[in-house]
Amino acid sequence: MKILRFNEGRWGVLEGELVLETDGPGGNPTGRRYDLASVTLLPPATPTKIVCVGRNYREHIREMGHDFGEDLPKEPGLFLKGPNALARPGNPRDPWGTAEPVPYPFFTEELHYEGELAVVVGDRMRHVPPEKALDHVLGYTVAVDITARDVQKKDLQWVRAKSADKFLPLGPWLETDLNPQDTWVRTYVNGTLRQEGHTSQMIFSVAEILSYISTFMTLEPLDVVLTGTPEGVGALRPGDRLEVAVEGVGTLFTLIGPKEERPW
Amino acid sequence: MKILRFNEGRWGVLEGELVLETDGPGGNPTGRRYDLASVTLLPPATPTKIVCVGRNYREHIREMGHDFGEDLPKEPGLFLKGPNALARPGNPRDPWGTAEPVPYPFFTEELHYEGELAVVVGDRMRHVPPEKALDHVLGYTVAVDITARDVQKKDLQWVRAKSADKFLPLGPWLETDLNPQDTWVRTYVNGTLRQEGHTSQMIFSVAEILSYISTFMTLEPLDVVLTGTPEGVGALRPGDRLEVAVEGVGTLFTLIGPKEERPW
Repeated sequence: MKILRFNEGRWGVLEGELVLETDGPGGNPTGRRYDLASVTLLPPATPTKIVCVGRNYREHIREMGHDFGEDLPKEPGLFLKGPNALARPGNPRDPWGTAEPVPYPFFTEELHYEGELAVVVGDRMRHVPPEKALDHVLGYTVAVDITARDVQKKDLQWVRAKSADKFLPLGPWLETDLNPQDTWVRTYVNGTLRQEGHTSQMIFSVAEILSYISTFMTLEPLDVVLTGTPEGVGALRPGDRLEVAVEGVGTLFTLIGPKEERPW
Repeated sequence: MKILRFNEGRWGVLEGELVLETDGPGGNPTGRRYDLASVTLLPPATPTKIVCVGRNYREHIREMGHDFGEDLPKEPGLFLKGPNALARPGNPRDPWGTAEPVPYPFFTEELHYEGELAVVVGDRMRHVPPEKALDHVLGYTVAVDITARDVQKKDLQWVRAKSADKFLPLGPWLETDLNPQDTWVRTYVNGTLRQEGHTSQMIFSVAEILSYISTFMTLEPLDVVLTGTPEGVGALRPGDRLEVAVEGVGTLFTLIGPKEERPW
């Protein structure tokens, strides 16, 4: 089932080209129906927090200049993004006419894409062991963890580098039926394949990540967890057209906007 | 004026020993009144995000092992805490009977206090210059940035070290009338003074911090900003009684709970 959020914050499910409105995420039908092409898609979550895994695919760790060799991370390395970072996905029926542009901020000269599988929590998780963690998932979606790579290297922590406004396009919808360890994540820039990773290559599985977080941070319904990016990260330029496809979920369409002016 | 949040999430103002309920933060009176001693105080904010300054008092930078000399930070160093970290303040009329204990988590052997002046945003801030930033403040309150110092040194980012459940006691209320650069922040552990800093010693003023954040993260009403801790940070033990007093605002009372068991 595909769950989506649209217009002023309504929820629905997708059936063919029709959006059947529901009274909440995965809720009961209200009877109202819309053509998919006619709605404005919103990020399919309203998180109190967004928790991200920093290094979860072996080849991406190597390309970032770290060589763990046999000494891979023992626990997931986490960082946070704020809800201000959420940006609307393009509607697949008119992706480039509807995608919310991510501004190219004044404070960076090195804006990067990181395509990822994202998880949206269905019910509260505290001290949930890995073998029960996936029972708490509402669905899976697609994210771009937009990153100001130059700022990431110089700031105290990754706040400005990772959590500036619109640095997290998310969508287009949630897929409830997916084996999160058996799918492909692919990123295309202007139509060219730039990242390709299979989720079986993750160091920590989705269940392990969720369980680990739940040992110290209570996860609330509609919180978002990003699961890390495969190798192939790289630079974006104003005007770039970015697509991240997760097999079995769908494609997130994102536009990079013009370079911002320094505000003063 | 002192603005407080209490019971199931009601707002009010404090007049002597009476809480006069209002229809929102700084809103209109509803006519209902309560004795201060009879209410459960809540953190006086419902933030979408909590943005913190990492190094903002010169002497604290030195004690953490950094010697910037003349080369002090040029921009505020930020990190995020999630709303899961919020913990209730003790009610000053019965502080140790009402404070919400901060658990001493299983994953740390070095839990530290960091007493701080906190700011709660009144209306949306995006690209607000420093000279106008304080016009957007709803009020000032008191925070303890609870920190797992050992974990802070080894994790990829400061998520587990700074944003575990209950790692941010906040309160007891908001004071609207305060010069944030002319007050004292003092931390007492079991009655002994451990931190004392004057806010004129901040490297970045409250106005500069808010303005800086607003250049890349839109601040929303009731978002929380922590302004850094003075020198004198140190270790806590289970059962400790922690008081942080900001002159002109009030005192935040916090209890450290027992050492948690590893969940599995």
